[in-house]
Amino acid sequence: MKRRGILFVVSGPSGVGKGTVRASLFEREGVNLSYSVSMTTRAPREGEVDGVDYFFAERAQFETMMAQDGFIESAEFCGNYYGTPKAYVEKQLEAGHDVVLEIEVQGAFQVKKAMADAVFIFIAPPSLNELQSRLNGRGTESPDVVLKRLQTAVKEMMLMSEYDYVVTNNEVQAAVDHILAIIEAEHLTVERVAANIREDLLSEAVDF
Amino acid sequence: MKRRGILFVVSGPSGVGKGTVRASLFEREGVNLSYSVSMTTRAPREGEVDGVDYFFAERAQFETMMAQDGFIESAEFCGNYYGTPKAYVEKQLEAGHDVVLEIEVQGAFQVKKAMADAVFIFIAPPSLNELQSRLNGRGTESPDVVLKRLQTAVKEMMLMSEYDYVVTNNEVQAAVDHILAIIEAEHLTVERVAANIREDLLSEAVDF
Repeated sequence: MKRRGILFVVSGPSGVGKGTVRASLFEREGVNLSYSVSMTTRAPREGEVDGVDYFFAERAQFETMMAQDGFIESAEFCGNYYGTPKAYVEKQLEAGHDVVLEIEVQGAFQVKKAMADAVFIFIAPPSLNELQSRLNGRGTESPDVVLKRLQTAVKEMMLMSEYDYVVTNNEVQAAVDHILAIIEAEHLTVERVAANIREDLLSEAVDF
Repeated sequence: MKRRGILFVVSGPSGVGKGTVRASLFEREGVNLSYSVSMTTRAPREGEVDGVDYFFAERAQFETMMAQDGFIESAEFCGNYYGTPKAYVEKQLEAGHDVVLEIEVQGAFQVKKAMADAVFIFIAPPSLNELQSRLNGRGTESPDVVLKRLQTAVKEMMLMSEYDYVVTNNEVQAAVDHILAIIEAEHLTVERVAANIREDLLSEAVDF
């Protein structure tokens, strides 16, 4: 019997390392996860493949899809649209694949409205001092920008209670282990399995 | 900062192999779990150690504890009382240890009333045919008794929706893996960690 996949949303403040955690998660052997491919209106960069890195679309096409409620989340950034096409995710879930969507906190709240049965994982920094040094470590922003990002991070930390799980990113592989445990456990929750098991058993019970 | 342990209740129909699963869980290396020690009024058997196998008690002592609501579950069986002392479990949880309680379905429902924040794991048979052959395999009961147990098992299967998780015992080590994933994930649920993390961060935030 085909069981539906689960959408896992991995999110957290800027600088927390959620991109690294997500990449390491997909590098793990024996892990069978689909990564959600985003759609964008920006031009493909050298080497980017349509349908792999992004679905590339014209602005009019994107806006039509937005009007038809075709995204589970979307945003405009530097004059370009970015969004997660609902149909692509639904197709993966229907085929029984778990989908991981790595996304900013604001986007996660959009997903929560669109996909009620998704599982929300908040990646937290070990401490604000650590987050600050990670943001500094990029070396690409001025102290003012770093401070502003930290303030945003604190506000986003306050939103973690809206998530289902909190994984502290002390060490990337430990965080990946935690996410894998969450994925395994979510497949065992009574809401997801009891109906299927009872169905199997009842169809069998007529033999007695 | 000391975090409170979690009580995991492992339960399921007779013959499903929950005792074997629990024993294998405790044999796993690196697993740090406390096993709940029951109290009983029956006489100690050769080699049984008070406080390890059971807490042995007089009938009057047991009844006083029952009257004082001192058990998270208790039952009378063949003229002897059996029960799980609340104080012992609470002490383990307060010390930050997770406690595993393996118990019959009826007892699990008593625990649910006494310990609202416990996590309930239902061990399900792969199929009713398999459960029947496991009950037969014991070779100790008549076909009538086996049939009666199967009927009880079907009724108990109907109660699984009251649990939090369902682990199908196809293979003992796989079931143990599932339980370990559930234990890890439960420590990451937002209800259990968000308050602690926010507290840590806010105490730190004054530095900025």
